[in-house]
Amino acid sequence: MPQARSGATPDDGLSTRQRRLRPILAVNTGEGKGKTTAAMGTALRAWNQGWRVGVFQFVKSGRWHVGEQDALQALGKLHEETGVGGPVVWEVMGTGWSWARSFDAAENPEAAAREGWRHVCELLANQAMDFYLLDEFTYPLHWGWLDVEEVVDTLVNRPGTQHVVITGRHAPAALVEAADLVTEMTKITHPFDAGQRGQAGIEW
Amino acid sequence: MPQARSGATPDDGLSTRQRRLRPILAVNTGEGKGKTTAAMGTALRAWNQGWRVGVFQFVKSGRWHVGEQDALQALGKLHEETGVGGPVVWEVMGTGWSWARSFDAAENPEAAAREGWRHVCELLANQAMDFYLLDEFTYPLHWGWLDVEEVVDTLVNRPGTQHVVITGRHAPAALVEAADLVTEMTKITHPFDAGQRGQAGIEW
Repeated sequence: MPQARSGATPDDGLSTRQRRLRPILAVNTGEGKGKTTAAMGTALRAWNQGWRVGVFQFVKSGRWHVGEQDALQALGKLHEETGVGGPVVWEVMGTGWSWARSFDAAENPEAAAREGWRHVCELLANQAMDFYLLDEFTYPLHWGWLDVEEVVDTLVNRPGTQHVVITGRHAPAALVEAADLVTEMTKITHPFDAGQRGQAGIEW
Repeated sequence: MPQARSGATPDDGLSTRQRRLRPILAVNTGEGKGKTTAAMGTALRAWNQGWRVGVFQFVKSGRWHVGEQDALQALGKLHEETGVGGPVVWEVMGTGWSWARSFDAAENPEAAAREGWRHVCELLANQAMDFYLLDEFTYPLHWGWLDVEEVVDTLVNRPGTQHVVITGRHAPAALVEAADLVTEMTKITHPFDAGQRGQAGIEW
């Protein structure tokens, strides 16, 4: 059963309200399924709070299109039209960041990833959004395309009450240490083991 | 990086297309976060395929309202109005199943859970939906309110191409064995450990 309460009350001088509004840095990692889908589920909660939601997919291929994109963008459009929920920005590196289409992820994924992070830094500094989903963001970190220390430092010291959720395998130790919430998705059984192919509606 | 391909090609006489359309029985379990949110993210993918989505929350309290409910119901309404995506049915045991309000989950959660499962059985038999999310459904199984063997048998032998995702801790072994996809969410770090309170937009 879900529980919205913690056991311990910390001696940190903060009120319950202050603790409730503390921004979260979360990481969904591990070899199992559900890293991205769980983050998308959390994005639904954020949208429903009227928060400004930004999804930045650090994937190299533009062909990887997940159903959540259409669904969340439909919710973003609903917000524009009716005021329900919050606005949604969705950016995919593989199709070119909309603000900088010159960075071709297929030709130079490292430069594209750096440009993506630079832009996120700018948004964070300006408190432009309330909820950031940096999907597959562990990979440019793992591959050494981005400086882990600098990234962690920026995330930890972000101003205001901006929530950040990062997904992907091989989350660097420094990121895991810095995060408030780290979940590891572990594969117990997977249909691919039995030769099952990925299928629409389930895998994307 | 997400991969939509499996390594092995099984010798089961099925075509790739048939394997792609094989219905999935998935279980998200474990002590960590993300069991429900991951299932909700998968529901977004299902919605986006135009599938008929049914969410059945086997929670005792009607006070537990998650943001995904509003978001997915907004998508269901969008489908009704514009034809985009699929229809969404959302039922919460704690507020009384809409088809049988006499089952008071607060007074008799066991009877309410049984009634919920009976209804799901009916839907499955009639192939009334394409995607079922049985949220927190492991608990009535774990508590012995429902017969695990009968439930697993019904799920395994469901007709057609109906996908079922079940969430919750303490998934019974027989269910785990029967499932095509089992993911365990493991807590590595959780803000409640540091006295953080649950907060809107993150926990619900």
